[in-house]
Amino acid sequence: MGTVRHFLVELERLKHLLLQQGSLVEAAIYRSVAAVTGRNEALARDVLKNEVQIDRLEVQIDDFAVSLLALQQPMATDLRLIFASVKINNDLERMGDLAVNIAHRAVSLVSQPSIGPAAEIPRIGEMVESMVRKSIDSFIHGDPDAAREVLAADDDVDKLRTAIAEKLVGCMEQDSRNIRPSVDLLFVIKNLERIADHATNVAEDVLFLTKGIDVRHHAELPR
Amino acid sequence: MGTVRHFLVELERLKHLLLQQGSLVEAAIYRSVAAVTGRNEALARDVLKNEVQIDRLEVQIDDFAVSLLALQQPMATDLRLIFASVKINNDLERMGDLAVNIAHRAVSLVSQPSIGPAAEIPRIGEMVESMVRKSIDSFIHGDPDAAREVLAADDDVDKLRTAIAEKLVGCMEQDSRNIRPSVDLLFVIKNLERIADHATNVAEDVLFLTKGIDVRHHAELPR
Repeated sequence: MGTVRHFLVELERLKHLLLQQGSLVEAAIYRSVAAVTGRNEALARDVLKNEVQIDRLEVQIDDFAVSLLALQQPMATDLRLIFASVKINNDLERMGDLAVNIAHRAVSLVSQPSIGPAAEIPRIGEMVESMVRKSIDSFIHGDPDAAREVLAADDDVDKLRTAIAEKLVGCMEQDSRNIRPSVDLLFVIKNLERIADHATNVAEDVLFLTKGIDVRHHAELPR
Repeated sequence: MGTVRHFLVELERLKHLLLQQGSLVEAAIYRSVAAVTGRNEALARDVLKNEVQIDRLEVQIDDFAVSLLALQQPMATDLRLIFASVKINNDLERMGDLAVNIAHRAVSLVSQPSIGPAAEIPRIGEMVESMVRKSIDSFIHGDPDAAREVLAADDDVDKLRTAIAEKLVGCMEQDSRNIRPSVDLLFVIKNLERIADHATNVAEDVLFLTKGIDVRHHAELPR
């Protein structure tokens, strides 16, 4: 029984590490978006500087997960949790990478004229940040309802991105001086959309964990 | 001994499934790039149609890997192989997604004027296709030298993408009718760069497997 109990403690530690990574990634996303909207280069530099922390923690979490598999003979449900943790770890690190991409665009945008469609960034930023927060919460609390909300929000982000992209193309066509900042913003919203995709992956893993339903590559949401 | 032998057969089956997925993904990338360069909508539609095959095989490989972990008490090296397979499976499926993105851009490009920088696509396409092929080969044959070549090629792809992006911005500034096709091509080369990143991930996993060196998030290549 001592070993089983110890193993449960280790699983909690794994979840705790992922929560910690989730906080770092949330902060990176928040700051990178704020750097774009506030034309704040210092904030963008913070994101670039903190990338190494996220990268290190990713390796640490992976190694810890492998060690749990190697040292124990986990039960099927534990195995599933470890397996999901490895995937979620990967998704979180990618979100961190995407925040870094946004931060690079923020640095580039500071030296360019401000354009109208930039006003749309806060809204899509908030939508994506909320999805990320909810996806991490749904994993930590094993909450399938929160996970389903994340899946539902993904379509709204895609639609909003398409609408903003259309405005940006219009803005470029209006005045060629708008082209460079518009290209940067096209990639900012593309990166945000991809962060939302990763949050969706996390939510799908949570649904698989909590209900045993595999929703990857299926059009219908489980009820 | 019978069980051990059976387990080795299962590991070979896992590698075989990944090789199969690799072939599907290579074909998708090749066709999507050819659809862009040849302004061939039918080829792009093929890629969109075949996505479901890649998605199905991804789930099948994941399930098979989990079943191997659950039914056996694998040795450390086997565990590492299974673990790497799960990650490579994920990278391959993402490459398939990115080929689908390129195919969508190919469909959009067919109805637009042809622009000069499109002539640069075959070269970056071939570079990326070669990285993908080599990354899969390096995994199947456990070849660290091939994996190192993939890592080295990634920088060249990044540089070429930056150069083409600059040309595309210039092309947009020249004539506003070039804006829409240029935006499509900006995303084509971005998607190619991301495919190269996933091939790099695969190569890093192979180096980890064959040499036990973790090259993720390190600037220096192991010698």
